[in-house]
Amino acid sequence: MPHPFPHRYQVSLSWKEADLSEIASGARPPIGGGSPPEFDGSDPSRWSPEHLLLAALTQCLMLTFLALAKRKPGLELKGWDASGESVLEKTKEGLVFTSFKVSVRAKVPTGFEDEAKRLIESSKRYCIVANALKTPSTLEAEVSAA
Amino acid sequence: MPHPFPHRYQVSLSWKEADLSEIASGARPPIGGGSPPEFDGSDPSRWSPEHLLLAALTQCLMLTFLALAKRKPGLELKGWDASGESVLEKTKEGLVFTSFKVSVRAKVPTGFEDEAKRLIESSKRYCIVANALKTPSTLEAEVSAA
Repeated sequence: MPHPFPHRYQVSLSWKEADLSEIASGARPPIGGGSPPEFDGSDPSRWSPEHLLLAALTQCLMLTFLALAKRKPGLELKGWDASGESVLEKTKEGLVFTSFKVSVRAKVPTGFEDEAKRLIESSKRYCIVANALKTPSTLEAEVSAA
Repeated sequence: MPHPFPHRYQVSLSWKEADLSEIASGARPPIGGGSPPEFDGSDPSRWSPEHLLLAALTQCLMLTFLALAKRKPGLELKGWDASGESVLEKTKEGLVFTSFKVSVRAKVPTGFEDEAKRLIESSKRYCIVANALKTPSTLEAEVSAA
């Protein structure tokens, strides 16, 4: 059972030098933050806000699927590989994320492919990160038998 | 100079077991993903979508400030510690992030405190992650001389 609502989530961030920072939250291993190369970041091995946002969305879809799949006896996940892509464009309103797309390849037990496909579609509707974004996310899913 | 727009950002995610996944993007060290304890995550040392979203927002504000501060000779950052908090609530529309708040303590050279404070306010207006969210972010800033 989820903890009672509302939930409060917390992170902290400390600036290090130039565009680099350390992002922490409880027991989680700190994440090295920095501008992406697209914005002249000084270190391409740092996680940028752009990448973290996309990581949040891509993971949220999977966890929402898992939460929904728990209610379907036999629909056990056997594999899930996803890729996320966002597009940042210069618009009249400034720099705007104009697209978020997640592509999923999922494996489930034989006979559950159609049900899994429907649940993946539902996951998009219930995903709290997708629903927090102004720009609607698009989703492509391929489901096969494990 | 930023790379020409549009920018395309990419991440990939592989499911491992239960709610756990690995999130990767280019040269960045992979992030271990998982549900947060609030949603019965099996490992409290994993980065959840909820925490990653907040990490994106908290970092974006700082990088936006740094980008704006570059145009102000003498306004050099000497320290930046921030904490971010989001609130997830059960509403008629389902689970919704109803609040995003970032608190910043910044240090700048003596005499630049007021200008830095104004720039931090501007950072919120230009922050691409804050602007991607349906729920407006709130910002508290304390600026002192280094």
